[in-house]
Amino acid sequence: MGHPVAMSMTPDIETIRTVAHAVADAARVETLKYFRKPLAVDSKRADFDPVTIADRAAEAAMRAVLRRMRPDDGILGEEEEAVRGTSGLTWVLDPIDGTRGFISGTPTWGVLIALQDAGGPIHGIIDQPFTGERFEGGADGAIWTRGDARVPMKVRATTDLADATVLTTFPEIGTAEEAAAFRRVANACRLTRYGMDCYGYALLAAGHVDLVIEAGLQSYDIAAPIAVVRAAGGIVTDWQGGPAHGGGRALAAATPELHAAALALLNG
Amino acid sequence: MGHPVAMSMTPDIETIRTVAHAVADAARVETLKYFRKPLAVDSKRADFDPVTIADRAAEAAMRAVLRRMRPDDGILGEEEEAVRGTSGLTWVLDPIDGTRGFISGTPTWGVLIALQDAGGPIHGIIDQPFTGERFEGGADGAIWTRGDARVPMKVRATTDLADATVLTTFPEIGTAEEAAAFRRVANACRLTRYGMDCYGYALLAAGHVDLVIEAGLQSYDIAAPIAVVRAAGGIVTDWQGGPAHGGGRALAAATPELHAAALALLNG
Repeated sequence: MGHPVAMSMTPDIETIRTVAHAVADAARVETLKYFRKPLAVDSKRADFDPVTIADRAAEAAMRAVLRRMRPDDGILGEEEEAVRGTSGLTWVLDPIDGTRGFISGTPTWGVLIALQDAGGPIHGIIDQPFTGERFEGGADGAIWTRGDARVPMKVRATTDLADATVLTTFPEIGTAEEAAAFRRVANACRLTRYGMDCYGYALLAAGHVDLVIEAGLQSYDIAAPIAVVRAAGGIVTDWQGGPAHGGGRALAAATPELHAAALALLNG
Repeated sequence: MGHPVAMSMTPDIETIRTVAHAVADAARVETLKYFRKPLAVDSKRADFDPVTIADRAAEAAMRAVLRRMRPDDGILGEEEEAVRGTSGLTWVLDPIDGTRGFISGTPTWGVLIALQDAGGPIHGIIDQPFTGERFEGGADGAIWTRGDARVPMKVRATTDLADATVLTTFPEIGTAEEAAAFRRVANACRLTRYGMDCYGYALLAAGHVDLVIEAGLQSYDIAAPIAVVRAAGGIVTDWQGGPAHGGGRALAAATPELHAAALALLNG
């Protein structure tokens, strides 16, 4: 006999939601402990880095929840070794996406949680602990929650780049060639905004902007955004139109028309 | 007899605070009515612009509060004609600073309120209605409030550019020459972040970042930030080291050392 093939036993949506929220709640507590907390003067050592501590504490808390609630699932996270599961499902975790924003005190970093099967992300959360916003997407749609507020998310219907707002994290994304490709799209858009990290994908899903273009991503940076944006009706691919969940370059668009137009300029 | 000389009768700090908060509260209600509200399909006319409506509605509400509470003070606002007062004091209002952020759904725009006498801003508020944060500075110090939370604000003690985080709104600020000057400073800093509008000055006052550098400002963009940053112990000047409250170019720094180093590079 060869290796046993892991059968994907996808749990029902309520179970997925319950676990994902428990994971997000655990990360919220840990990240907020360290957000906007100054470096103590006597701790100004190379090994004391608030964002590293927050990253590790949050991922450890998230993993503890998963070990308890989903012991057979795999875990892929930024900070610790990957856990190979037996269920065919993997939780992809980024405890703090946007560490530069985190250490600058801006409220646009996020906690990313995705559940992935062999085909890619099937459920995702982009959580912003400071604003208290949770952007979630999966098989039953996409929803924004904040405290008791619950609003279904749907991407905008923009079809022309000339009407579009495009977001990216950095002014110069990736290589000089990638930056030039981004510029071609940005020049065709109505408005370009920078510095949003994962929050950009959340704004796209919620219908406030039209495009997000990034490069140099890790898989854990993009798995949750893919699930959230898709559940809200958007499209996320790499810059060739293929799957983006492996990381690298990502193009997220509200509509097929915008996606095609941006893809052409990225490659033109 | 010539023109009567307006005597500046500066009210006590509690009166200033009460008025400033009433003005900020009025703007908060109006701006949140329109933040993240999509354009109705049947209202897609050139004269329907949510940010313009929000801007006007917020400034009208702010002016109504001032007419009632401070009828003798002047008003300088973005949207309506200036009101010349008789008290020697002027309220400087920007109902939505960061309109590009506002229409993109990001929580980093703000309502700016400053009280100014002949010498410049003496009290200021940077209010972020969505996060519920109010950054305030005046004669009795600087304070961050959010709901029931109250935290005094103090700038960081960073003295070397190599340890500094610098913020600006755009990657390319102002003219090509201004952009090059900004680049010289940014290249010497540890971290550069974009897209924050007035929220950058708030983060500087609160001790999360070290420098904000901008160009192309209006006086109502910078009056409140000057008051808030100064009250927290920071320095705000133009790029020649002179007063910045007239608008144009601004350099805000946490410490005199950082200010001097940035000033040298901006002019070098």
